[in-house]
Amino acid sequence: MTRQPIPQDKFSFGLWTVGWVGVDPFGSASRPALDPWEYSDNLAELGAWGVSFHDNDVFPFGADEATKRGILTRFKEATDAAGLVIEMVTTNTFSHPVFKDGGLTSNDRGVRRFGLRKILSAVDLAAEFGATTFVMWGGREGSEYDGSKDVHSAMDRYKEGLDTVAAHIKAQGYDLRIALEPKPNEPRGDIFLPTAGHALALIAELEHGDIVGLNPETGHEQMAGLNYTHGIGQALWSDKLFHIDLNGQRGLKYDQDLVFGHGDLVSAFFTVDLLENGFPNHPDGPRYTGPRHFDYKPSRTEYMDGVWESARACMATYLMLADKARAFRADPRVQDALGYAGVPDLAQPTLAEGESIADFLATDDGFDPDAAAERDFGFVALQQLALEHLIG
Amino acid sequence: MTRQPIPQDKFSFGLWTVGWVGVDPFGSASRPALDPWEYSDNLAELGAWGVSFHDNDVFPFGADEATKRGILTRFKEATDAAGLVIEMVTTNTFSHPVFKDGGLTSNDRGVRRFGLRKILSAVDLAAEFGATTFVMWGGREGSEYDGSKDVHSAMDRYKEGLDTVAAHIKAQGYDLRIALEPKPNEPRGDIFLPTAGHALALIAELEHGDIVGLNPETGHEQMAGLNYTHGIGQALWSDKLFHIDLNGQRGLKYDQDLVFGHGDLVSAFFTVDLLENGFPNHPDGPRYTGPRHFDYKPSRTEYMDGVWESARACMATYLMLADKARAFRADPRVQDALGYAGVPDLAQPTLAEGESIADFLATDDGFDPDAAAERDFGFVALQQLALEHLIG
Amino acid sequence: MTRQPIPQDKFSFGLWTVGWVGVDPFGSASRPALDPWEYSDNLAELGAWGVSFHDNDVFPFGADEATKRGILTRFKEATDAAGLVIEMVTTNTFSHPVFKDGGLTSNDRGVRRFGLRKILSAVDLAAEFGATTFVMWGGREGSEYDGSKDVHSAMDRYKEGLDTVAAHIKAQGYDLRIALEPKPNEPRGDIFLPTAGHALALIAELEHGDIVGLNPETGHEQMAGLNYTHGIGQALWSDKLFHIDLNGQRGLKYDQDLVFGHGDLVSAFFTVDLLENGFPNHPDGPRYTGPRHFDYKPSRTEYMDGVWESARACMATYLMLADKARAFRADPRVQDALGYAGVPDLAQPTLAEGESIADFLATDDGFDPDAAAERDFGFVALQQLALEHLIG
Amino acid sequence: MTRQPIPQDKFSFGLWTVGWVGVDPFGSASRPALDPWEYSDNLAELGAWGVSFHDNDVFPFGADEATKRGILTRFKEATDAAGLVIEMVTTNTFSHPVFKDGGLTSNDRGVRRFGLRKILSAVDLAAEFGATTFVMWGGREGSEYDGSKDVHSAMDRYKEGLDTVAAHIKAQGYDLRIALEPKPNEPRGDIFLPTAGHALALIAELEHGDIVGLNPETGHEQMAGLNYTHGIGQALWSDKLFHIDLNGQRGLKYDQDLVFGHGDLVSAFFTVDLLENGFPNHPDGPRYTGPRHFDYKPSRTEYMDGVWESARACMATYLMLADKARAFRADPRVQDALGYAGVPDLAQPTLAEGESIADFLATDDGFDPDAAAERDFGFVALQQLALEHLIG
Repeated sequence: MTRQPIPQDKFSFGLWTVGWVGVDPFGSASRPALDPWEYSDNLAELGAWGVSFHDNDVFPFGADEATKRGILTRFKEATDAAGLVIEMVTTNTFSHPVFKDGGLTSNDRGVRRFGLRKILSAVDLAAEFGATTFVMWGGREGSEYDGSKDVHSAMDRYKEGLDTVAAHIKAQGYDLRIALEPKPNEPRGDIFLPTAGHALALIAELEHGDIVGLNPETGHEQMAGLNYTHGIGQALWSDKLFHIDLNGQRGLKYDQDLVFGHGDLVSAFFTVDLLENGFPNHPDGPRYTGPRHFDYKPSRTEYMDGVWESARACMATYLMLADKARAFRADPRVQDALGYAGVPDLAQPTLAEGESIADFLATDDGFDPDAAAERDFGFVALQQLALEHLIG
Repeated sequence: MTRQPIPQDKFSFGLWTVGWVGVDPFGSASRPALDPWEYSDNLAELGAWGVSFHDNDVFPFGADEATKRGILTRFKEATDAAGLVIEMVTTNTFSHPVFKDGGLTSNDRGVRRFGLRKILSAVDLAAEFGATTFVMWGGREGSEYDGSKDVHSAMDRYKEGLDTVAAHIKAQGYDLRIALEPKPNEPRGDIFLPTAGHALALIAELEHGDIVGLNPETGHEQMAGLNYTHGIGQALWSDKLFHIDLNGQRGLKYDQDLVFGHGDLVSAFFTVDLLENGFPNHPDGPRYTGPRHFDYKPSRTEYMDGVWESARACMATYLMLADKARAFRADPRVQDALGYAGVPDLAQPTLAEGESIADFLATDDGFDPDAAAERDFGFVALQQLALEHLIG
Repeated sequence: MTRQPIPQDKFSFGLWTVGWVGVDPFGSASRPALDPWEYSDNLAELGAWGVSFHDNDVFPFGADEATKRGILTRFKEATDAAGLVIEMVTTNTFSHPVFKDGGLTSNDRGVRRFGLRKILSAVDLAAEFGATTFVMWGGREGSEYDGSKDVHSAMDRYKEGLDTVAAHIKAQGYDLRIALEPKPNEPRGDIFLPTAGHALALIAELEHGDIVGLNPETGHEQMAGLNYTHGIGQALWSDKLFHIDLNGQRGLKYDQDLVFGHGDLVSAFFTVDLLENGFPNHPDGPRYTGPRHFDYKPSRTEYMDGVWESARACMATYLMLADKARAFRADPRVQDALGYAGVPDLAQPTLAEGESIADFLATDDGFDPDAAAERDFGFVALQQLALEHLIG
Repeated sequence: MTRQPIPQDKFSFGLWTVGWVGVDPFGSASRPALDPWEYSDNLAELGAWGVSFHDNDVFPFGADEATKRGILTRFKEATDAAGLVIEMVTTNTFSHPVFKDGGLTSNDRGVRRFGLRKILSAVDLAAEFGATTFVMWGGREGSEYDGSKDVHSAMDRYKEGLDTVAAHIKAQGYDLRIALEPKPNEPRGDIFLPTAGHALALIAELEHGDIVGLNPETGHEQMAGLNYTHGIGQALWSDKLFHIDLNGQRGLKYDQDLVFGHGDLVSAFFTVDLLENGFPNHPDGPRYTGPRHFDYKPSRTEYMDGVWESARACMATYLMLADKARAFRADPRVQDALGYAGVPDLAQPTLAEGESIADFLATDDGFDPDAAAERDFGFVALQQLALEHLIG
């Protein structure tokens, strides 16, 4: 139905995605864990270009150096053999109970130092394995109860932690950028940096913010009821869209991590449109050129066939949406409708070139608000055109 | 039951709050509108210190200069007579249909220029009336359909608008700061700057961001399921909590604008705790010293008695919570529980003073994660202490 | 792109939908109101089959009998001339402030009696105009504060009111059924009968519940985060899906009333699939054969062109989805996938025919749960097939 | 601060509550599991009256009869020794992967038969252990994808399953009632019987519905944004509130299972008010007299001290709220405010005694809607009185 993915599509998968065995808050594993080196061939065959992993997706927490090296070597050989790029590495500072109150912002300084070491170690690993992005998801940085955290101290420690990691990257000369992954809640009641906005705001306060950006996840923003495309749009406008986590979420509930497109499909269409076509008014504006990285979970009802089917589905859906988004933008009726809706107009500065505020205030535009209020923007018709492209 | 509010409490009310006549999406007015000068005496008598208003809360949209001046004079005389401070002024760029696609980010440049003029005019009014905060709520800046907005252009125009307003304030030498009010949705499907975080992120990109901060509203952040106290905490940490809108919201639904405390009461307790007591670990840290401003609506079921009762309730609840928050912080059992929970520990930098990353990595802390994981943080007990103070 | 709707499609529109002038909680009208008789020609021309209305969509609240009759006659002539069926009539017991605490469950008995009269009068009108469904949306039946309602009394009064209306219908011999429209909130903080389930539960307690069923609205169920297709499925299973309100909603926020399909598109696909194709396992099971009624609002950004475009879009989307749903069910790959997923199996009773509980307990099925747990249900693959049909 | 709980308070705890070891979707256990017989002494000492359990909280899934009997005997001895009542028993049909698509509504008939056997076996155990309530939470009965379930078949099977269980109870002469526990989602994307309303609606269709009622959980209803007190009020009005699960939830997110009162505190106050004081207008109306059962989880940040502290907190909060609710109802100012608000009026039938519909329609009440619309209901003032009682 749709073409086979190719490496040029830059599709990548976290090891923990196809590797999720189905443990959830109410149930135990529904399928076996493969060894870390057993995913590469299948992913490559399906058309993936890259993989990513948390340190402990590959080697166990607390593994001694020899064990760790043995596993890593075998894993790296498998990805190399399969022709997969290790494009991103991240640290797990959330599974072991030592991190139950966070890694960088735990109320226990011993834990913070341990967490920071673990992160720095994973940074070294990322650099060693050639990854160019180091994602930091602070899933346990947060609280259930407002009294249990001093938010000022928490922001201080988050900043200290991020600046330390960034300074280390710079000091070591690694070709690596940090990408923060916001999430509003789960597993904590309220997570610090709950949205793309809050993470951008913290980055603006960093000493080494130049190499720190975002890795926004579709479902995470949607868990706050926010428009994902607007969120990545603002990040891209700020030149901070360093990486991306695509998946599906059906409303405000637990983190579903569905196949991309199996959540809010119309939103997914416009997400792909932005990723593939950029901002319509700014053909030379900022573009996302990084991996199309999926952070999803094959549903617990599926066994191993379903695991691979779901990985295939993520890529197939993306490719279908990309084709449709290109056709949408190329359609002269769409161009007309965009013009009718005034979309290109928004690229025009409100003040004329060289117009001072004093000049502006002294000018009479002869504007009649009541007449202007009768403008028909045609937004619904434009959306219907999008829908017709999407399902037509 | 609780003491009468006094001016030193700095309670203030938007004219549109007690002045709301009960029009909602499914119903017409349930009580009469008073004239703008008819609210001051009652508010002052109830113990309010200040008022705020949108331009068109006082004079009609499109009023000629003479009408406008006449009304403004009478309004100012009434507030002066009542001893009320006009602490904040804002513009209405959302009610008239000319703004149906926004003011600063409308897809119609004519509208944008008209909106900008209206805002600049309100800024002059704010300065004239001695307000120190100019709130900007871009309630119509947004979209229902992703295709109808180029987010890059929208951010450009939002930035242009804000920088123009800020430049005007600076050029005129006004003692005035801009406070952005985020909101995730309603009346637009998705509003730009949906949360405190997104607004902070935009401010970081401004040329004149030094005089631009936030006016976060309790219910608006909660409409995204976010922790309001965390949000204002991050804003305060960034020295950007310029103003505040207190009210109540019961979950993810339409903007309820209930009396402060009639929404999430436990959250309200910690909000007041932060406003009154600051960050527990940072007694000399940033503090919010501005107005305690209520942006709420007397329920439509109430007539005029209920209007004043509800205004009284906002202040009474705040004062009760403030007393309880002070007692909470002063309680030695709470101090013990905070220590047990490690709250003060988070003020300690993770790295020792002067400790380089290299030193840090070379140090063996002798940390045993399995042992550390057995720490009982006592967060539930601490929360229960807060609850006992709150309802004890 | 898709065929023109025809009367056999049974598309109908509320007068208040295309007639919505754009008043929302933060803004005034953005387009003119037409007279009630000015909508029929356009709707008929677009392909609609029927219309519906609230009493006060046609004549003003409190109109004297002569005025009312004059308007009604002119309106009826226009619908007749256009060939439109008046398929449903309902009462407005929510706009006038007298209903600010509800109609049937107001804490004021005078209001309840007035509300009941108004409803009975609209029932007579419905019968006179040949409508077969009388919708009752109790949008103001509810509360903001738990203390302000005795829920037992409220349920008693709701029951009394519904049974009185139903008894009147029976006594008059009207060919009319009541359809309750649930909604969780807005305009009240919490509305009684918040979901399809709660309304079904109340109906089960009625004396005249045989002629009372449901009119579930897509967005209303989704405002509680619920699966609309499951909700109408349960109603249909209970033989209580008497009428339907189709529209679009994007998550948990204010009631958006978007064009059908402009909300959760995947959900809309399966809604149409159920309406058009029935339950897959029960070809002779209950089917919805009533109107495809749209309860939506043309976005406030649109002027009159946008009003008609949006009405057209509702029908076009439905027809497109209906085509796709038929193709989905007819596809042999889908049949295979359904079988693989065990969908038909669920039609088999768990106990064998004639198997008593004692027999069942005495039988050893030789079932191995660990082996059975390895079944791959293929739900993701099935969903991907649906997606490929939807956007293929 | 508040008195020690006593057995007469009828507080009970699920074994799985204090026994939760902290496994969540992103983390492993943070504290040890005790043996099933190790919880009784502590719970009794804290003042609990009863316990409840899932079969596999006590003995492992798949345990042979001897193992099972050995464990059950030891467990029963421990509860007897501690003086605890085993008030409720339930089955786990959600943890083992065989139930990944549900127990009673799995698309696999073998699974359904296995699930039904497991439930019937747990019913026998419930009866043997003297429990009077058998809770059925169908946490896995549902779907992520609409295509994967025929809702008609699912309702048929749910009905078949419930009627079979109820028939077995009757046939065996057990003094046991079934209580269904609704939940909107998690662990399934959409769970069948998502709310109290939907479950009541299904019960109305059962053959043996007389012994089937509800066990509504605070957080579950709130995960759909619904008013819990309204929900249990409707259930009580229908004589179907058989059991109750009290806990705390902070908005629309994953199932938090916080301590009772650590969620929406104002809602918790009115819940306790209903449980303790009944319906204000119906002193002789239906009352809930069952256990005050907590279904909560000690936060994962806590170790064993925190487990017991949190159990203590559930009961202490309930007792504090009960005291406050009694004082609220006894306060003459509250009585006045209720009268002013018209709360007692709602107990009056809308039609007069003996008034026929014809009489009613022939009567002129002389009602002036515009005048009546000016009534001040005083709902905000009443709520503020509640707040002052709550935190005063």
